[in-house]
Amino acid sequence: MEAAAAKPVLRVAAICGSLRKASFNRGLLRAGTLPFRFLLCLLLYAKIIHPHLRINPAAAEVCEDSIPGLRIDHLDISDLPIINTDLETEGGGFPPAVEAFRDKVCQADCFLFGAPEYNYSIATPLKNALDWASRGKNCWVDKPAAIVSAGGGFGGGRSQYHLRQVGVFLDLHFINKPELCIQAFQQPPKFDSDGNLIDNQIRERLKQVLLSLQAFTLRLQKD
Amino acid sequence: MEAAAAKPVLRVAAICGSLRKASFNRGLLRAGTLPFRFLLCLLLYAKIIHPHLRINPAAAEVCEDSIPGLRIDHLDISDLPIINTDLETEGGGFPPAVEAFRDKVCQADCFLFGAPEYNYSIATPLKNALDWASRGKNCWVDKPAAIVSAGGGFGGGRSQYHLRQVGVFLDLHFINKPELCIQAFQQPPKFDSDGNLIDNQIRERLKQVLLSLQAFTLRLQKD
Amino acid sequence: MEAAAAKPVLRVAAICGSLRKASFNRGLLRAGTLPFRFLLCLLLYAKIIHPHLRINPAAAEVCEDSIPGLRIDHLDISDLPIINTDLETEGGGFPPAVEAFRDKVCQADCFLFGAPEYNYSIATPLKNALDWASRGKNCWVDKPAAIVSAGGGFGGGRSQYHLRQVGVFLDLHFINKPELCIQAFQQPPKFDSDGNLIDNQIRERLKQVLLSLQAFTLRLQKD
Amino acid sequence: MEAAAAKPVLRVAAICGSLRKASFNRGLLRAGTLPFRFLLCLLLYAKIIHPHLRINPAAAEVCEDSIPGLRIDHLDISDLPIINTDLETEGGGFPPAVEAFRDKVCQADCFLFGAPEYNYSIATPLKNALDWASRGKNCWVDKPAAIVSAGGGFGGGRSQYHLRQVGVFLDLHFINKPELCIQAFQQPPKFDSDGNLIDNQIRERLKQVLLSLQAFTLRLQKD
Repeated sequence: MEAAAAKPVLRVAAICGSLRKASFNRGLLRAGTLPFRFLLCLLLYAKIIHPHLRINPAAAEVCEDSIPGLRIDHLDISDLPIINTDLETEGGGFPPAVEAFRDKVCQADCFLFGAPEYNYSIATPLKNALDWASRGKNCWVDKPAAIVSAGGGFGGGRSQYHLRQVGVFLDLHFINKPELCIQAFQQPPKFDSDGNLIDNQIRERLKQVLLSLQAFTLRLQKD
Repeated sequence: MEAAAAKPVLRVAAICGSLRKASFNRGLLRAGTLPFRFLLCLLLYAKIIHPHLRINPAAAEVCEDSIPGLRIDHLDISDLPIINTDLETEGGGFPPAVEAFRDKVCQADCFLFGAPEYNYSIATPLKNALDWASRGKNCWVDKPAAIVSAGGGFGGGRSQYHLRQVGVFLDLHFINKPELCIQAFQQPPKFDSDGNLIDNQIRERLKQVLLSLQAFTLRLQKD
Repeated sequence: MEAAAAKPVLRVAAICGSLRKASFNRGLLRAGTLPFRFLLCLLLYAKIIHPHLRINPAAAEVCEDSIPGLRIDHLDISDLPIINTDLETEGGGFPPAVEAFRDKVCQADCFLFGAPEYNYSIATPLKNALDWASRGKNCWVDKPAAIVSAGGGFGGGRSQYHLRQVGVFLDLHFINKPELCIQAFQQPPKFDSDGNLIDNQIRERLKQVLLSLQAFTLRLQKD
Repeated sequence: MEAAAAKPVLRVAAICGSLRKASFNRGLLRAGTLPFRFLLCLLLYAKIIHPHLRINPAAAEVCEDSIPGLRIDHLDISDLPIINTDLETEGGGFPPAVEAFRDKVCQADCFLFGAPEYNYSIATPLKNALDWASRGKNCWVDKPAAIVSAGGGFGGGRSQYHLRQVGVFLDLHFINKPELCIQAFQQPPKFDSDGNLIDNQIRERLKQVLLSLQAFTLRLQKD
């Protein structure tokens, strides 16, 4: 705690709860630095619902949201089969994609969930990922987490509160503030006519979420 | 409404939110009349969590829960892919298993959800089914529904309240009473040493749920 | 709606969950026709939180939201003591203010709740009123209801979902749609510089809520 | 735990969300050591709902649940007026009972909430107390908390999850485990025919809640 330089580098596992490949946007995502890439994943989800939103590759380069002491890894959940305990082996083993995902969850120091809202609750692919990593040895246990979401209505807010209840059982410690629910379709627009992200306020708010997650994680880590 | 005999036969679509095939029990399930078969699905789910529970084929024959005016169809959700809007065609079409499921949902007059609780919220396979039939034309709209669940802790209760919130968006009209949360692992045992269901109270309570669903459906149906 | 004249007149009990007298606005409220008066009660609540909002008497006259077949009575909850079963008599009697409130609840055909959000849940005065009329003989049982709210953030939305869960036990049947959560502090302003309500969209949406409540009530009452 | 002596003494403010004086039991409560007194408050609440429960003074002496390093103060909330911002002075002052309560909340290191469930949500008196101490300067901010409840059904569980959502806004950090929902009316009985608490398991579980709260508080306070 003495000096920021002495802080350990925290590994944040970022998990975006939507599966859509949005393949024409893949280059875009690859280009992005990680926190921003994660935000794009959420906004792409919003785009599914309101297809007039345009997002282009140039947007990704805009962002260098580096926060000293945080390293963000995007965990892919698109290969996970839908949860079915019949897929577990007798000895408690899991399908390879599940094992790989569980390993990454176990290695993370904390989590950033992108929690799009489907039908007023948690997006199914995200719930699926949460469930797989809770089977047998619960990989989430006793780790800090933050949630962000984007969408219409409450910007994904209903999903966030259901996810918090899931976290009670998984033993996740969510930061309380700031909350980030991006009402993606409200004025002013979040993107210009070329699809460049022009909402610096959103980017700044995401940064504040990450700083809060970092501080809470350091506070909870045992000496 | 003049006489019970004149009531239309209502089609109840029963959807059990767990995927486990429990293949050694398949004959068992086939043998059961439908309301009981549905109950078994839930109790088999409970068995996954507490493997010492034993359930045998003989149990199925016990039950002839026929309620005049209700026909229960068990909708299988095990073939549905995990929700991903990339799987929809440009014209708004769905994969064949999804189309088939959606058709059955659209044809039902009301729903009986078996809602096992995973990690303090809705079981992922059930949420997946709810999501698929809400895409494009919402198949659930304006129909009555009831929920039952079995499990440890609150007997699946937390899942039921999250499902009710999903129902606000889907425009489902849930009955309020009776609620049925089977605390499957409390004494006295629900099964004898041969696995026969010996809890007539549970069976009777399930029947009361169905009667309440029937009455509410008739009340809401337009003349 | 042609045959609206033949419909029975439904008594809607409107209950606004905030106690603030806002006495300087009392004349204003008296002047208003009832549906609008109720909306003002909610917006006054919003004004408590953001005092720069101005609302003036002229606004009240604007509205003649009469819907044939609906009569709205505003139930005052400001005289109810905080719930304490010690205040009940041995024979199951209640303090006079509670008895009077309970009588009005029992006489209503359906309910319109104004549900301001306090600390992410139901406003305490509203919960107090709900509790008092549920003691002994539950006065809410089997009646339809709608919820509207105004506020910052989600416009009171979190309160609405908690209230819906309360309704499961009270046996209220909430309409699902439309939902009305007024985000009172978003642009464009809801009032002009003289405090006149200038947001006809809100007024129209309130009317749609009432029409939906009316239709749902008639549907549940029929035969 | 060896070095427990070196730990600072943490002040736990225990707040029981029911107002009933249960005056004939007052001596009983006075006799109890504090953690136990708090448990009794909850069980007395359960007694209101199921009056056949008997609880007698002798029970209180049974318990010496002292946990080194924890001091529990029971905060009385029965004098708080029902929340109404009209009662606040222009300068932001509060009625004397509110000021006194707020002072005690501010001085506490962490909180133990007794959260009886009224109508599937938070008991009104508890919500009232939470609201008063959140006005102006939020007194709850950034402090750890635990919840226990007793009652029928889920033992107060539905109240606990609503309270956790309130905590997001108040910025409370709830422990996740253990959860304690006492299903007060299940067999075996919690009290003998003289009203003595005979359920040592409940007492032990309450102790585990307090130990978890203590550990979490120290972890969040460190440095």
